[in-house]
Amino acid sequence: MKQTYISEISKHLGQEITIKGWLYNKRSSGKLGFLEIRDGSGIIQGVVSKKDVSDETWESTEKVTQESSVIITGAPREHPKKPGVYELDIKDLRIVQLAHEYPITPKEHGVEFLMDKRHLWLRSRRQHAILRVRHEIIRAVRDFFDNNGFILCDTPVFTPAACEGTTTLFEVGYFDEKAYLTQSGQLYNEATAAAFGKVYCFGPTFRAEKSKTRRHLTEFWMVEPEVAYAKLDDVMELAENFIGHIVSRVLESRREELNVLERDISKLEKIAPPFPRLQYDDAVKMLQEGHTKGALESRFEWGGDLGSPDETYISSQYDKPVMVHRYPAAVKAFYMEPDPERPDLALCVDVLAPEGYGEIIGGGERASSLELLLNRIQEHGLPEEAFDWYLDLRKYGSVPHAGFGMGIERCVAWLCGLEHVRETIPFPRMLYRLKP
Amino acid sequence: MKQTYISEISKHLGQEITIKGWLYNKRSSGKLGFLEIRDGSGIIQGVVSKKDVSDETWESTEKVTQESSVIITGAPREHPKKPGVYELDIKDLRIVQLAHEYPITPKEHGVEFLMDKRHLWLRSRRQHAILRVRHEIIRAVRDFFDNNGFILCDTPVFTPAACEGTTTLFEVGYFDEKAYLTQSGQLYNEATAAAFGKVYCFGPTFRAEKSKTRRHLTEFWMVEPEVAYAKLDDVMELAENFIGHIVSRVLESRREELNVLERDISKLEKIAPPFPRLQYDDAVKMLQEGHTKGALESRFEWGGDLGSPDETYISSQYDKPVMVHRYPAAVKAFYMEPDPERPDLALCVDVLAPEGYGEIIGGGERASSLELLLNRIQEHGLPEEAFDWYLDLRKYGSVPHAGFGMGIERCVAWLCGLEHVRETIPFPRMLYRLKP
Repeated sequence: MKQTYISEISKHLGQEITIKGWLYNKRSSGKLGFLEIRDGSGIIQGVVSKKDVSDETWESTEKVTQESSVIITGAPREHPKKPGVYELDIKDLRIVQLAHEYPITPKEHGVEFLMDKRHLWLRSRRQHAILRVRHEIIRAVRDFFDNNGFILCDTPVFTPAACEGTTTLFEVGYFDEKAYLTQSGQLYNEATAAAFGKVYCFGPTFRAEKSKTRRHLTEFWMVEPEVAYAKLDDVMELAENFIGHIVSRVLESRREELNVLERDISKLEKIAPPFPRLQYDDAVKMLQEGHTKGALESRFEWGGDLGSPDETYISSQYDKPVMVHRYPAAVKAFYMEPDPERPDLALCVDVLAPEGYGEIIGGGERASSLELLLNRIQEHGLPEEAFDWYLDLRKYGSVPHAGFGMGIERCVAWLCGLEHVRETIPFPRMLYRLKP
Repeated sequence: MKQTYISEISKHLGQEITIKGWLYNKRSSGKLGFLEIRDGSGIIQGVVSKKDVSDETWESTEKVTQESSVIITGAPREHPKKPGVYELDIKDLRIVQLAHEYPITPKEHGVEFLMDKRHLWLRSRRQHAILRVRHEIIRAVRDFFDNNGFILCDTPVFTPAACEGTTTLFEVGYFDEKAYLTQSGQLYNEATAAAFGKVYCFGPTFRAEKSKTRRHLTEFWMVEPEVAYAKLDDVMELAENFIGHIVSRVLESRREELNVLERDISKLEKIAPPFPRLQYDDAVKMLQEGHTKGALESRFEWGGDLGSPDETYISSQYDKPVMVHRYPAAVKAFYMEPDPERPDLALCVDVLAPEGYGEIIGGGERASSLELLLNRIQEHGLPEEAFDWYLDLRKYGSVPHAGFGMGIERCVAWLCGLEHVRETIPFPRMLYRLKP
């Protein structure tokens, strides 16, 4: 019989329909059985009354266990007291496969156990909510760029050279050569931006981070736009409009999921451009004041990169994401354009999410002078021949250009209000986590 | 001055605008210069008349070389004889950076040379057309699934176990362990389909193919839907609707690009569901007849997998993609569901694109019985413990389920009418090709 999805149930009130799914939960009282059925699109409560069904269906109702697969026929109706909530009067219940002792029970489990059972944990209401928000964020990301004249140019995972140092690179045997898994598509984006003007890449990126933190995965998805002829101010504007678009889409389409996650939606409703801009120099002052007030353990000195506690402190001062710009060139990558007014600063920006979520975007203007880049490559001890093709971009029609990268999982963690990024991707990969 | 993109030029007729781009081509006749300008969004011809511009602009016009970056001010107007074609009367031309001897000239170059200069080759009209079609295909893929109730569940690139044998796997050192780069998200899709009902994954996949063929890349993008409770017939229907949707979207939005590629559009206009179904048994007969007619060198025997020449022959018999189903189980992966009526056959399907383009989709129904899967894993000599979590899916609410995978680059090659997949992705990776 034709399958009806629970998400479409309101179109079939009073009709006899068939749902194909799994038992999420069960309770019974005498001759009544209350079955929560899930089919991936939603969850509905079904009611079995012994007097209205065959002996086989009643037996199945008594026998069926959590996460057994079931095919159910019945008629949906609106809940008498809760408008918009539907129930199903079950007429027939067939067990497809009976599950024995499903390991994830309604009681509490430790995180490591749940991570080992990630393939099953994904069936829970909370994981559904998170991954639906993730899907919506990814759609919003693509729609934003697709509708603003950007061309998707996928950059390679296998790269011969490192973008930002080699200590966190994964190495792969590539036939008789060595390859490295990409950490960022940016260098390639610079080539495609010179071809297409406005481009983005969006795919998995890899960092062999040896530390276990709540913000790092070894494999994570990153979207990176790059724009020819753009300056730092242009990408700051792009970044705030981009984030504003994502947040409003999630609020529009995934409010129910945010409620499941008990997310404080009022905090997300404040996220609209423009976002505050904070020059690094002023960020340093803010951090030093934080230390004086006793909110930060050590005193931050001008010249250092911001650490996680620093980012957390700064971002907790704002209701909106804050854009910290013009860091010391020395703490940023070799390809950053120097500020013409103060060449010790890089024309870069990090966007820190509010509520202490820290950096979600990093970007800036790229050096367009061949001479400057050659010097930087020497200073950083990088092998010049590996950058041959990249330097070509400065020989043949070099232009000012700028872009940024946003890590999807950090964005999901922020919008869902999660402490740790491990639940923001179906199968997280971390230092001690390669399975399932 | 505010930048106007060439793609938007028709909205600015008669106004003074600024275009920021590159010189694509130039010719001059006496006191007139004809400059083809590209900015990534399009190409426009600009006309410089010596008498109407400053000496500096005329000097720049004479000096500017192919692929120099330029900022141009002028007024666009419709071409007097070609409606819908626009030209620009240039008032001011500023060279941002003068390119010296751009390596890709309008003369012919060998493919290896162009592949070495891929970062520059991407600037050509032909590569623009291909990569815009690619972008449109990817949008169409995502829209199709997003609008049909599928949830995007990204599957991991780092995997501990192999999906289909280990000979074509890339191995990576993962801290103190070994990991393999994914060849397919399917096993993981089966877990997420049991959670979400209808899912898809879409990302780069990797095969260490030692052969150089026109259909293989070591790194390629694959989209894989998976549906709980679906049977072989359901995924055949899904596949034909999916392909039909992609083709009509490309025809609707990228006709101009197909014309640049000199694609025979009439052939694509025939691609609408339903597609012909051909059982493997009948495909064998067709191949044997092909041999008798002298169209195929060797006689195909029942039991073998189809090779490239076989696929080419079969697909050239049809105007539409043909769905070859029910191959011998022995030539397919261990997880295929056997045909209950003939257990020596697998409930699988390959979709072969017409005009000899060969396989673009492979899929089928997955075995849902724990016992059968355990036997298959033993028969194939696979390590059972690596499939622990996968076998859990058969212990806890196993259901019939089916899905398929489509390689994006082969689809791009088919729709663009390309002989070789190497131009279907911005930076192709092949046996001897890891750069740029």
